[in-house]
Amino acid sequence: MRILGLDPGSIATGYGLVERRGGHVVHVAHGTLRPPRGSALPDRLAFLHREIARIVAEHRPELAAVERIFAGRSVRAALVLGQARGVALAAIAASGIPISELSPQQVKLAVTGSGAAEKTQVQAMVRRLLALATAPPRDAADALAVALCCAHSGRLWTLQQGHLTRVGERPSGRERNHQLVVRSVK
Amino acid sequence: MRILGLDPGSIATGYGLVERRGGHVVHVAHGTLRPPRGSALPDRLAFLHREIARIVAEHRPELAAVERIFAGRSVRAALVLGQARGVALAAIAASGIPISELSPQQVKLAVTGSGAAEKTQVQAMVRRLLALATAPPRDAADALAVALCCAHSGRLWTLQQGHLTRVGERPSGRERNHQLVVRSVK
Repeated sequence: MRILGLDPGSIATGYGLVERRGGHVVHVAHGTLRPPRGSALPDRLAFLHREIARIVAEHRPELAAVERIFAGRSVRAALVLGQARGVALAAIAASGIPISELSPQQVKLAVTGSGAAEKTQVQAMVRRLLALATAPPRDAADALAVALCCAHSGRLWTLQQGHLTRVGERPSGRERNHQLVVRSVK
Repeated sequence: MRILGLDPGSIATGYGLVERRGGHVVHVAHGTLRPPRGSALPDRLAFLHREIARIVAEHRPELAAVERIFAGRSVRAALVLGQARGVALAAIAASGIPISELSPQQVKLAVTGSGAAEKTQVQAMVRRLLALATAPPRDAADALAVALCCAHSGRLWTLQQGHLTRVGERPSGRERNHQLVVRSVK
């Protein structure tokens, strides 16, 4: 199963693709989408929509994952982030790919073993887990971390008619501790 | 000049098209975009993107207008509204149409003569100004009001290389009082 992780932002949007092969998760691609500097907001958002559609067409992921957003931001920041996030969700849904939401804590915990890990720890662990020659840029590392977290939690879930449905046995102790709960975006 | 006004929202997005012919502004079309009930957020946003692209292709507006959003909302509300607004801006920009931003006060003032008008006053005045048989639904009335405001302020502005540029003489006293300042979305 190939999974696209996204870290949408108004200035830069990170993306990362991983593939689960049996018990292993391997790196497929990653990068950062940056609209041309100085372009107006609507043009930046149209660029984002177009580029995500291009990535989906090129890499054909079967599942996408984004981080859930929590409060604790300013109204202005939430509006700006919401605009980029909305475009990302719309572009993926237009391709018919189901989208999972994970909390930032779940992602950090799954990748580093700590829900309170620093950005640099996430970068370093993503590099190590995917055996990359160099650490990916921050936005791309965050996107790969989301995809990795989703890939590791994926064995408990399956896709049925476009919805994520839990299958199989009870989670192991380790999985319970990690609280890997993948939800489809409502 | 044909102008598309939009009032993006997570549940319903109003749209309204007007056309300036000489000194008159006439009604072209209006409506409300409602994603299927119970559909997931990404699917609702993809629906919105698709429908706005369809409206633009059908009516071929030369300019679009949306309301600027101000603080005074919750972080959660700003995030939800931002997602719909981002998709609307991206869909319009993908068609190469310039977008203007107007403040809610400007819109109310231009349509009703009062920057603090109630929703029902806006609905009634939109009906009257555009000589409609019945008052449009609230979201569509708001969208028509945005388009109307933009059409009335339009005489001071022209489109140059996709940017709104001010032309001609100084604004009259009435225009100064109305503070009709159309800005392109940055």
